[in-house]
Amino acid sequence: MEQINTYINTHKDRFINELNDLLRLPSISADPAYAEDVLATAKAVESSLIAAGCENTEICETKGYPVVYAEKMIDPNLPTVLVYGHYDVQPPDPMDLWDSPPFEPVIKPTKLHPDGAIFARGACDDKGQFFMHVKAVEFMIKNNQLPCNVKFMIEGEEEVGSDSLGDFLKKNREKLKNDIILISDTGMIANDVPSITTGLRGLSYVEVEVTGANRDLHSGIYGGAAPNPINVLAKMIATLHDENNHITIPGFYDKVEIISDEERAEMAKAPFDLEEYKKALDIGDVHGEKGYTTTERFGIRPTLDVNGIWGGYTGEGAKTVIASKAYAKISMRLVPDQDWHEITDLFTKYFESIAPKSVKVKVKPHHGGQAYVTPIDSIGYQAAAKAMETTFGKTPVPQRTGGSIPIVALFEKVLESKTILLGFGLDSDAIHSPNEHFGVWNFLKGIETIPYFYKYFTEMNA
Amino acid sequence: MEQINTYINTHKDRFINELNDLLRLPSISADPAYAEDVLATAKAVESSLIAAGCENTEICETKGYPVVYAEKMIDPNLPTVLVYGHYDVQPPDPMDLWDSPPFEPVIKPTKLHPDGAIFARGACDDKGQFFMHVKAVEFMIKNNQLPCNVKFMIEGEEEVGSDSLGDFLKKNREKLKNDIILISDTGMIANDVPSITTGLRGLSYVEVEVTGANRDLHSGIYGGAAPNPINVLAKMIATLHDENNHITIPGFYDKVEIISDEERAEMAKAPFDLEEYKKALDIGDVHGEKGYTTTERFGIRPTLDVNGIWGGYTGEGAKTVIASKAYAKISMRLVPDQDWHEITDLFTKYFESIAPKSVKVKVKPHHGGQAYVTPIDSIGYQAAAKAMETTFGKTPVPQRTGGSIPIVALFEKVLESKTILLGFGLDSDAIHSPNEHFGVWNFLKGIETIPYFYKYFTEMNA
Repeated sequence: MEQINTYINTHKDRFINELNDLLRLPSISADPAYAEDVLATAKAVESSLIAAGCENTEICETKGYPVVYAEKMIDPNLPTVLVYGHYDVQPPDPMDLWDSPPFEPVIKPTKLHPDGAIFARGACDDKGQFFMHVKAVEFMIKNNQLPCNVKFMIEGEEEVGSDSLGDFLKKNREKLKNDIILISDTGMIANDVPSITTGLRGLSYVEVEVTGANRDLHSGIYGGAAPNPINVLAKMIATLHDENNHITIPGFYDKVEIISDEERAEMAKAPFDLEEYKKALDIGDVHGEKGYTTTERFGIRPTLDVNGIWGGYTGEGAKTVIASKAYAKISMRLVPDQDWHEITDLFTKYFESIAPKSVKVKVKPHHGGQAYVTPIDSIGYQAAAKAMETTFGKTPVPQRTGGSIPIVALFEKVLESKTILLGFGLDSDAIHSPNEHFGVWNFLKGIETIPYFYKYFTEMNA
Repeated sequence: MEQINTYINTHKDRFINELNDLLRLPSISADPAYAEDVLATAKAVESSLIAAGCENTEICETKGYPVVYAEKMIDPNLPTVLVYGHYDVQPPDPMDLWDSPPFEPVIKPTKLHPDGAIFARGACDDKGQFFMHVKAVEFMIKNNQLPCNVKFMIEGEEEVGSDSLGDFLKKNREKLKNDIILISDTGMIANDVPSITTGLRGLSYVEVEVTGANRDLHSGIYGGAAPNPINVLAKMIATLHDENNHITIPGFYDKVEIISDEERAEMAKAPFDLEEYKKALDIGDVHGEKGYTTTERFGIRPTLDVNGIWGGYTGEGAKTVIASKAYAKISMRLVPDQDWHEITDLFTKYFESIAPKSVKVKVKPHHGGQAYVTPIDSIGYQAAAKAMETTFGKTPVPQRTGGSIPIVALFEKVLESKTILLGFGLDSDAIHSPNEHFGVWNFLKGIETIPYFYKYFTEMNA
């Protein structure tokens, strides 16, 4: 298996060039204007899987964007690894905060990535990370080192809620049959502190609309007498948290998994520097639920954040208008065992109930997903931990993170498989933000580590 | 003077065509992209004044957009009327709510304007209204009916705070010398309830910026731990009113003019139908300060409204982002004797004081103006009332309205003249909104009424 290092050294420039070609495609699933680019990306992903030596590749149609499938079956008696990833990316805005164009990848060193990082939308989330798997499998196939079967399922709607994936899984249960699902779409604590994600938060994402008068009004003539939907929306949003930053939606916390003091003490041992955290974000203070530490706030507690707000005049200069409508996009991160459908209902009822009589309110659910926890005594986790230990020289830390990959819970339900979240990004890689990047070292380290997972997972299953 | 009706009947189609030509120019002073159109409009206004028979016309440069000046002096011993108006307009957005393009005037009947109304941005505010004066003066000059001197001062920055007008007034005190200032930039109660505006609210307009982290963050990784500037801004805005909708800024009400119960009772006699008001706006309830009626809320009480808000992801679909920055445009309508500079300071200090340590706050004052009240026993008011009585057959109602024309207080201070607010629009004309319009009947009624003001004002001054 030492060949992997030689193979990486020989081919690393090509690996990066191939990834950059993928990153140049603006596969923004949220914006219909980019539909052709999303489809072109699916084709490019399929080509890369063929080039890696996979077989039976297919661009599987869905109601939305297609899922790219590929496999390399060597023996039905050996275990099968199913790799999941997504080829779609977040919208790049706000554009003016990017130091270089989001779809023209450039490599620049950063403090945490002295060997250089690839700057582009999707570099880390998730093109760079799923492409590590393509290259790791390429190595194993071309060097006769593949110890088991492998299947790929790379989708194009992760950033907009994976709407078509549930159907796809249900229709292709047999084809997708596997012994473990492997995903690189999370991060690790630091390049010298490898970690494996064992918990993910669920999600409920809604859009709200508050309507005052049937048209925009002059604030001089109507101000103070007619309802102002922006002021009303602000007050309603403010009402969603109490003075301790607890969420006020009745029933919201009812099913939240209770974590014992022992478990909290164990989690508190993971390295975390609050001063560094504040400094990195340039904030005077953190801001969260009373009674919980910062790592608990994003790791084990549910949260509610406004992701976007708009209404009235937002152009240059001044306009003395009272808007007819104001809008917000609001998402809630959920923890085991909150049910996202139930939470969406609770939110909707409460939000409607706190509206004054002077306005009309609409709540439109966008999408959601359940939270997920991986047991660390499973073969999958043990194989992943041993692989990281081999290439990092350190036992990885099991870590619960705040992000959501809603489909992980779905995989367990429909495919009856556990998922291993083996990510190589860093929290500072600015995914979903301007200047997203992915360390070249991390990219190559992922390609190096993945074949060991296959080796150990096959051995442990023997 | 009966000739005025004949003159209007003969020329009304031309009057409307000329106004439409003016309305086709998108003179949006708030948006630098329209700078050339604003300047072209100034030239068109000058041409119209020359055509009406005025002399010594001039496009007077300022630091911003120019002021169009014109005059017709017939005898230095006779009184001088100074007409003020503005040729700039509000931005037309939201564009998708216009039934016809905002700069392509069309005439359509409405419920309140069965003879037709001209739909276009600026139709009522203020191109249609100042143009009544141009046409009224045209009639008086061409028919030797001008009983006194007249000066015009039509500016191009009213919708963005009249920033250059103060300087212009100070530098041109002699040239602008007058006995009364006449403005049509307000409304009347109804076509069969003529009214004259005797009170205007002052204004303080600010823009606020709340900054959380130094970049947009992934809401999964940071949600619940890092400050969310949108949630914080919503809470800060909510804090600006208490549960009775009183404004909470310390000192805000300290100088508010105290209106006696007798005066309030007098004002309450003006016709106002709350059910009609709610129906016209399609709202379930009005929304305002406890302890005051709706007409008091917009007439004699100061208010605070958010005119625009924005931050985070506002495009299609979902983006799980915590924005780095959130913004709002906030305006306060002021009453006598609140000082807008002082109120802007009070707002700024309070807004900064309610920010949590986790965010940074910037308050940028936009512009403002003082409130104003006209005495109804003055010759100016009496002449205007008699003119309306002549053409409407009814004594007009003196009315305090909520709008602000900040420069009226400035006129009194610098030019030492009183102002008469003789408006012919209706509240329902949707100024500052999509589908702004101005009744053809109102336009012609204004042209008919104005010459009588000149006649009575000159007679009463004799």
